[in-house]
Amino acid sequence: MMLLRVSQVLLGLSALSSSALALWPQPRELSTGTTPLKLSNDFSVSTKGLPSTPNDLQDAIRRTQGFLKTDKLQALVPDRGASSKSAVGSARALRSLRLAYTGTARRLTSLAEEAIADVESRVEGYTLTVPSDGGEAVLQANSTLGLFRGLTTFGQIWYELEGTAYTLVAPIQIKDEPLYKYRGFMLDTARNYFPVDDIKRTLDAMSWVKINTLHWHVVDSQSFPLVVPGFQTLSEKGAYNAKAVYTPQNVKEITDYAAARGIDVIAEIDTPGHTAILAHSFPEHIACFEASPWTKYANEPPAGQLRLASPATVNFTSSLLTAAAKLFPSKFFSTGGDEINANCYKEDAETQKDLAGRTVDEALDGFTQAVHGALKGVGKTAVVWEEMLLDHKVKLANDTVVLVWISSANVQAVAQAGYRLVHASNDFFYLDCGAGAWVGNFPDGNSWCDPFKTWQKSYSFNPIANLTKEQEKFVLGGQHLLWTEQAGPTNLDEKIWPRAASGAELFWTGPGGDVRAALPRLHDLQYRFVKRGVKATPLQPEWCALRPGKCDLDA
Amino acid sequence: MMLLRVSQVLLGLSALSSSALALWPQPRELSTGTTPLKLSNDFSVSTKGLPSTPNDLQDAIRRTQGFLKTDKLQALVPDRGASSKSAVGSARALRSLRLAYTGTARRLTSLAEEAIADVESRVEGYTLTVPSDGGEAVLQANSTLGLFRGLTTFGQIWYELEGTAYTLVAPIQIKDEPLYKYRGFMLDTARNYFPVDDIKRTLDAMSWVKINTLHWHVVDSQSFPLVVPGFQTLSEKGAYNAKAVYTPQNVKEITDYAAARGIDVIAEIDTPGHTAILAHSFPEHIACFEASPWTKYANEPPAGQLRLASPATVNFTSSLLTAAAKLFPSKFFSTGGDEINANCYKEDAETQKDLAGRTVDEALDGFTQAVHGALKGVGKTAVVWEEMLLDHKVKLANDTVVLVWISSANVQAVAQAGYRLVHASNDFFYLDCGAGAWVGNFPDGNSWCDPFKTWQKSYSFNPIANLTKEQEKFVLGGQHLLWTEQAGPTNLDEKIWPRAASGAELFWTGPGGDVRAALPRLHDLQYRFVKRGVKATPLQPEWCALRPGKCDLDA
Repeated sequence: MMLLRVSQVLLGLSALSSSALALWPQPRELSTGTTPLKLSNDFSVSTKGLPSTPNDLQDAIRRTQGFLKTDKLQALVPDRGASSKSAVGSARALRSLRLAYTGTARRLTSLAEEAIADVESRVEGYTLTVPSDGGEAVLQANSTLGLFRGLTTFGQIWYELEGTAYTLVAPIQIKDEPLYKYRGFMLDTARNYFPVDDIKRTLDAMSWVKINTLHWHVVDSQSFPLVVPGFQTLSEKGAYNAKAVYTPQNVKEITDYAAARGIDVIAEIDTPGHTAILAHSFPEHIACFEASPWTKYANEPPAGQLRLASPATVNFTSSLLTAAAKLFPSKFFSTGGDEINANCYKEDAETQKDLAGRTVDEALDGFTQAVHGALKGVGKTAVVWEEMLLDHKVKLANDTVVLVWISSANVQAVAQAGYRLVHASNDFFYLDCGAGAWVGNFPDGNSWCDPFKTWQKSYSFNPIANLTKEQEKFVLGGQHLLWTEQAGPTNLDEKIWPRAASGAELFWTGPGGDVRAALPRLHDLQYRFVKRGVKATPLQPEWCALRPGKCDLDA
Repeated sequence: MMLLRVSQVLLGLSALSSSALALWPQPRELSTGTTPLKLSNDFSVSTKGLPSTPNDLQDAIRRTQGFLKTDKLQALVPDRGASSKSAVGSARALRSLRLAYTGTARRLTSLAEEAIADVESRVEGYTLTVPSDGGEAVLQANSTLGLFRGLTTFGQIWYELEGTAYTLVAPIQIKDEPLYKYRGFMLDTARNYFPVDDIKRTLDAMSWVKINTLHWHVVDSQSFPLVVPGFQTLSEKGAYNAKAVYTPQNVKEITDYAAARGIDVIAEIDTPGHTAILAHSFPEHIACFEASPWTKYANEPPAGQLRLASPATVNFTSSLLTAAAKLFPSKFFSTGGDEINANCYKEDAETQKDLAGRTVDEALDGFTQAVHGALKGVGKTAVVWEEMLLDHKVKLANDTVVLVWISSANVQAVAQAGYRLVHASNDFFYLDCGAGAWVGNFPDGNSWCDPFKTWQKSYSFNPIANLTKEQEKFVLGGQHLLWTEQAGPTNLDEKIWPRAASGAELFWTGPGGDVRAALPRLHDLQYRFVKRGVKATPLQPEWCALRPGKCDLDA
């Protein structure tokens, strides 16, 4: 951690003076020089020294080479780099990047395989050296994923001036690996639907900042776009329309696309709450369906929860979730478990009968054991929202992962209980906060999780606050989240980016970064995203983006 | 007002049950029936009865006919209109809309001319009847602008089902005219630059909700994108780059485009504050240029104000603003006048010398008289921000228009002083509020005008609160505003729409509307905007959009 902090401070100063190196996330160890270097017109990436080159790594190399040509990101200084013209003109030219494998395997595994390997076993580190004398650059790793992360970094090194890609800070030496194994982003595709291409574009953008997990909250009470084999009626009656669905082919397309970019896709079918839409197909399994007023029966309309005390419903849920889980190659599957409404069950005669003297929490325990057991049977490890553990005291398997969303203050209790956890608290990481109440007749209403969460807010988060050394090891990582009550295809990019990149750096590089030093690099990232077709939100007037530090409060 | 309120309540009920008529803004008087009617495949608009058909009206007719074919807006009900199939199939077909002129002129004036006529003289009213028996629809007005507004309404009547445009609520009778003459939107193109096409798309969207004024805050301290004949060095040295400019040809293209859509473009060159960028070309006219810390010398970086006490600067400003004003056909030109910083002048030796015993406000009075006088000389009426009148007590010409932005509570003082005013207060109409502080090192900072201003907030505004009958007549209208510290081409549509439509209806239809009744129509508008290529933000989950009222707090 000491080394990290030193390098952050050093780069911070450098960035303030020249925005010299547009890397995001910041590598854990980085040293730079002061020599200009340009990319040769015949620049190429060599894989000759690798024991083998998986197809998805080859594709990643092609994409990187494409970006080197098409990014055309000018330096964010007032003259956009024009004063460097003679330095760039007379610079040495880098002709090749050589990929080297430092492991012992006879063949490299594919990115796709490594992306979905056990989260603790993933190896994403790499070293990258870019000499200043025109000699070859070298990217070394002992995993395909590490080579891929290093390629991503290599693609961010270059600015463009009159058709030439260059850096002013060669030689560059990077030794990098993530501090946390889980760096995620959650997307809700149930409140509003997103076409497959939107999700693919989001996966691309995630990979550019080394996010390695898409937590896909695919269905909810409002719609059921997932086509589940054996349960097709759910999407037929529950999708917003016949085209607003994710077929098994779409899911494969998405998970393949993700894995080829080092991203594991963890699907969630939230249960037993957030399931009203199932009543259109299976009314027998849903309590308090569209009960009114919804405020009494659910956190948002429409109300409806699985009859968790009914043996038939437990079986149904186990079957549905295992059928859904089989669509996804990930080792994880989320069964949700947030916002279970007590009134709903209290007033449901069927549930009261089925409880047969048990409490709702006792029934929930049985429900969860059964469903998680079924998932275990198809090789899936369960992920749940924090209430399952902290409020309902469900007996969860030791390997269950707990998502902490209600408050970052609840992290300690989860770690104390000995469960792996993911930071996902609304007070730092919810991208939907601050856009006003979305219910229809509440003119003075703010969003429930006001205010808007700025990139600076999440950047300043400490993932191990109040944790003992023993507890720290349960922190898998963290993620930004986009609930989509007020989002759709029209504003998806703008809502996510560049704010989710803040979490990406926090959980890769580690906490303690200075927002002042980070901002110039985040501007670079925002501009680069726009060049690559992702409509990221501008963070400041361009005047500020071109003048690092000048728009700080004390400048 | 009584009739209006009755019709609003009636339509409200209708909208709650079926989202029957997707009009926005709501016509002042409206009656509907219950008979289905469809548009004939050979539907046409007849102008035979008009004394003449200006080219820009013909273009508007063509655009309307295009939208009738391309909008393909399905009804916002769960089955998207499928259950109306037989009713639509057997409905009578409307074959024509006849335009009729009820005035006395021998030739119709063009939209372009009427759009920039004296604001009080503009005639935008119309009547529209759509019979249920297949007989021709008739649109009557005694102005070209009125015909245009009616065409816009006609284009919103129709839903689409399997290729057929239809309504379920014929016959329809509308008698409409705006309550307020000024319905605007302000765009800042200086904090971040917007290409001409973005502005044109915004003008289109504005016209769809009958907004009739673009208040174009074209330059500011951060950049000077306007190419002003005789002062080209300002944009050469002050634009973000050589392409981020508005040439005189661009301005003509934009003002022509606007006028053909019934929109007057009021340009603003903000003075004497917000002018730092001028120092790159004319350092002699700028005090406290980039003085540090900026917080002491300006409301945002960089600091810099015109040396208002210098006779040379007064002459320069008069020349610059008249040269700029000549580019714009509008009768109005805004000289700004907000956020003048006292420290800047106090510490500027040149200004202290030039004051020669006068107070800054006395000098500001002389500066303003001279500049406004020069503008009057080229036929322009001045527009100013409220401080000029309320804080600095500048002696303004009686016809000056005052923009109230600091607080809606200040409206009374402006009306009391006898000046025409435009509602533009940040507490109701600022579209940039609520996205966090944009300065670089303020992790817990909120935007200065938190919270986010919802559409419901502006919709609930009362333009004549606390005004006497005598004072009410000074209210010209109002506008939403987008300052672009955190906006750019990537998120322009999402920031403006559909929220600015809320103001459009408020100032057309009048206050007192019920957000509950309005929401289904606003969903229609949001969906229609997306169909027309404007990336408006979703207001709710689609589940709610399809079920009017179901997501109200008490549903």
